[in-house]
Amino acid sequence: MARYCLTISYDGGDFEGFQIQPNKVTVQGEIEKAFAKRFSHPVTIVASGRTDSGVHAIGQVAHFDTDKIFDIEQFPYSINALLPSSLAIVDCKKVADNFHARYNAKSKTYIFKLALSNIHCPLIRRYYDICHYELDVQKMREACKYVVGMHDFRSFMLADSSKENTVRTVYDLHIDEYADGKELWFVISGNGFLHNMVRIIVGTIVDVGRGRFEVSDIKKILDAKCRCSAGKTLAACGLYLKEVCY
Amino acid sequence: MARYCLTISYDGGDFEGFQIQPNKVTVQGEIEKAFAKRFSHPVTIVASGRTDSGVHAIGQVAHFDTDKIFDIEQFPYSINALLPSSLAIVDCKKVADNFHARYNAKSKTYIFKLALSNIHCPLIRRYYDICHYELDVQKMREACKYVVGMHDFRSFMLADSSKENTVRTVYDLHIDEYADGKELWFVISGNGFLHNMVRIIVGTIVDVGRGRFEVSDIKKILDAKCRCSAGKTLAACGLYLKEVCY
Repeated sequence: MARYCLTISYDGGDFEGFQIQPNKVTVQGEIEKAFAKRFSHPVTIVASGRTDSGVHAIGQVAHFDTDKIFDIEQFPYSINALLPSSLAIVDCKKVADNFHARYNAKSKTYIFKLALSNIHCPLIRRYYDICHYELDVQKMREACKYVVGMHDFRSFMLADSSKENTVRTVYDLHIDEYADGKELWFVISGNGFLHNMVRIIVGTIVDVGRGRFEVSDIKKILDAKCRCSAGKTLAACGLYLKEVCY
Repeated sequence: MARYCLTISYDGGDFEGFQIQPNKVTVQGEIEKAFAKRFSHPVTIVASGRTDSGVHAIGQVAHFDTDKIFDIEQFPYSINALLPSSLAIVDCKKVADNFHARYNAKSKTYIFKLALSNIHCPLIRRYYDICHYELDVQKMREACKYVVGMHDFRSFMLADSSKENTVRTVYDLHIDEYADGKELWFVISGNGFLHNMVRIIVGTIVDVGRGRFEVSDIKKILDAKCRCSAGKTLAACGLYLKEVCY
């Protein structure tokens, strides 16, 4: 048996999330089906973590085992022919037998893409959340600083999540501007993320930008340790798992 | 009766072209259906020109007539609620009764978006053509110069098109680079375009970039006045009607 590590990109809009589920089109389900065909044995894919329905990935990472000999360099090209066009293996590497895509992950980086427009934008609707308010980006940048660091992020977690340890460390959160400031990309990296954490953090920072919260409210929201204190969860279609570091 | 001019944006991937056709989802069909509901009378939309199945629009222009009084500023917002999310009216203006979206158009600008990648890219597949070859962009820029000007573009027209006058003037054609040169945007404007003209021009310039044609072959291809002399027609999903000038 040998272990291999995959880098996977997918358009989350075409899947009901990453995790395999009966009678649903999922990323894991499609990959395991294609791999079983390719290797002529059942294959289980272990990812760095699940992504929710609608969330995209530029560089999701997963490992799998096989005792079959195959051309690793050619593998992404040949396997992509068996996968739907909404999903691609972009890299494959042999790794140590004890490598684990989930347990060995040191940090993850997500990007949340927000477009500012007072009217609906058909051409970006699948890949951006659209904000109709005027935003004070300078204030939003100040708010980002309060998010960075080791905090209990319970306020920024889906309310019915049963997670007990909600302390995470955010290494960096910054806002890049594109298209003459009409697109804001929130780039966040940390040692781990709770359910909906990035989408709630960005939703809360947008609330600072539109004046619903003050910059210093971020600290109060963290202290409240209650989902009800934070802003709304932004749309899944704006969120991308950019990369996982080991 | 009064005449109004619309600016329309749409995701071409969700339509079988602009022009209304029985039992097909088209841009014109969806707009006329929504407008008939809104104004309680049949409405005909006259566009600057058709776009093919799969071709997107950032700023398609069309006019229509109605004797109904309505709030023009609010109109895009209220009508978009009746349109599919793949289509939006982004502007509405009152114009002179003799304004004609097609006959009065002085120039049009298209953008063709090409992504360079040796592997499939699920996240941009709907909005870019993907090129797997290495390209010499400097040579492609030189080739662009041969396209600019008044020429008989018969070689760059769909072979079975019955158009008699195939002389058009291209005012500008240039290549913008994005994403560290991994995305090339071909921006072309002219007084009019033949069927598939932009997609064939870009396909031929890509052939120069990959060494299949020399830069100076562009002149020979124009002189040949035969579709068979030019490069291939690139994918419709890379093409955007950016704007129409009057």
